[in-house]
This record gives sequence, C-alpha cells and structure tokens, in this order.
Amino acid sequence: MKTYLKRLDDAFHFELSNEEGRIVQTDGSVAIGGKGNGMRPKELLLMAAASCSTIDVVMVLKKMRQQLDDISVETDGEWEKSDEHTVLKKLHLRYKLLGNIKPQKAVEAVKMSLEKYCSVTKTLEKSAEITFSVELNGEAVA
Amino acid sequence: MKTYLKRLDDAFHFELSNEEGRIVQTDGSVAIGGKGNGMRPKELLLMAAASCSTIDVVMVLKKMRQQLDDISVETDGEWEKSDEHTVLKKLHLRYKLLGNIKPQKAVEAVKMSLEKYCSVTKTLEKSAEITFSVELNGEAVA
Repeated sequence: MKTYLKRLDDAFHFELSNEEGRIVQTDGSVAIGGKGNGMRPKELLLMAAASCSTIDVVMVLKKMRQQLDDISVETDGEWEKSDEHTVLKKLHLRYKLLGNIKPQKAVEAVKMSLEKYCSVTKTLEKSAEITFSVELNGEAVA
Repeated sequence: MKTYLKRLDDAFHFELSNEEGRIVQTDGSVAIGGKGNGMRPKELLLMAAASCSTIDVVMVLKKMRQQLDDISVETDGEWEKSDEHTVLKKLHLRYKLLGNIKPQKAVEAVKMSLEKYCSVTKTLEKSAEITFSVELNGEAVA
C-alpha cells in the first residue's frame, strides 16, 4: 500500500495522495501556533482508527441483521512524552448509534472490531491503551 | 486531541473532521472491490507518518541552514496477518530532497525525525519495522 506526499509551500503544508489520486492536506504550522491549511498529522492517525473501526461496526451489525440508521464516532487521543519520545498513549472511541438495535449487539459489534477486525486499532494498541464507550439512541450502553 | 466521524451513505463512506472543522473522506468500500469516494483508513495511517516526519525534516534542515528547495515522500506500508489480527508490519519511507544540502545533513535530518522527533512513527514502530531511503537531487544517499 503506497501513499505520496508533496510540499505545497516553503513551510509545513503538504498534500498527500493515495494510488487513485485522492488527496488530503496536512499542515504542521498549526502545531507551532499558525492557522494552518490542513489537518495535523497526528489527527490523521486518530481518523484512521475511527474510520477503520466504523467499517467493522457497520458490517457486523448488518450481518447481525440489526437496523443501523446512523453512526458517528468521536475519537480522543492522548499523546505522552516518555524517554524523550512522544507517542500515542491513550485512545478513546465514543460510538453513537441510532437504529433498531439490541444494546448487547451494539456493544458486541464494537468489541469485535476492536478485539479482532480493525487493523488500525490493532496496530495502535501496541502503543496506546484503547478504550471505548457506546451510546445507543441517546443512552449509554457501554 | 479530538476528531469526529460521521456517515455519508448507508455503506462505508465517512467524513472525518478535526476541531477546526477541516475534513477528509474515507471509504471502506474500496477495500471490498468498490470504487469508493475517499481514502482507505489504512492509507490515512501511512499519510500521518509521512506528513509528521516531513515536518521534522523541514525544520531540522532549516536549523542546519541547509537550503531545501523541495521535498516529496513516498510511503510504502505492508500489513500482515498474524494471530488472527492484521497489523502494520513494515513501513518504508522514501524521502526525495532537492536543494543545496550536504548529503550527510539530509540523512541526519531524516534519522533525527525517525529516531527522536516524529510522534507518529514512534507510535507505529511499536508494531512495524520502519525503514527509510533518501534521494538527494536525484542521487541515492541513504
């Protein structure tokens, strides 16, 4: 799997593309107080986790024949400096589901993603403690 | 650090945003043979690594008073299935630099990023073997 970066200014504004030419911009000047023209690179990491896991949750609920009307996910990452390096130490995913879904099925789908299927969170869990909560039709179920 | 995901269709097309409202779209249907409307989540992980590290390389070369005219980075990720989970096992970053730069300074800047500064690759190296190559004005220097 390949991706490509090119520079868009003389500072930290980059354009990243995949093999189909789809692009996203990042801008490191945000991190040093600038307004920036794109995401922070570290934000892309959290976004990779959320989008990877949500694919699983959608697929698993479909297999379980649960009716998912909508899903949104908030991701909260904590970066910690240790041994001179900064690494992702905590990652919390907050899944909000709407639909005609049994509460235990909602929780099971999230657990199956994080414990088994999601390659991004399985990668990141080597560095970070990953936790989750699940809200179904406005009520906390996990 | 927070990011947000919302669903754009009844399949795997998502919009992700950061706290300033900047957005990127991912689409998991690419992975299952569809044409898709966005990045694969796993691609975002590689892009996070490239953009994070390139910020460091630009900064370090500036501190070293080297004249960087342009930089581009190719990222190649290998995902491997082991113990039922798929994780990032190898990540190769290929830096291409243009400018009036001493070869050893170019290599030193890349090494400083990967060995010390880049929080994304320091996180990913808990899972993946990270390697690099450096091309300066069209010639391989590392």
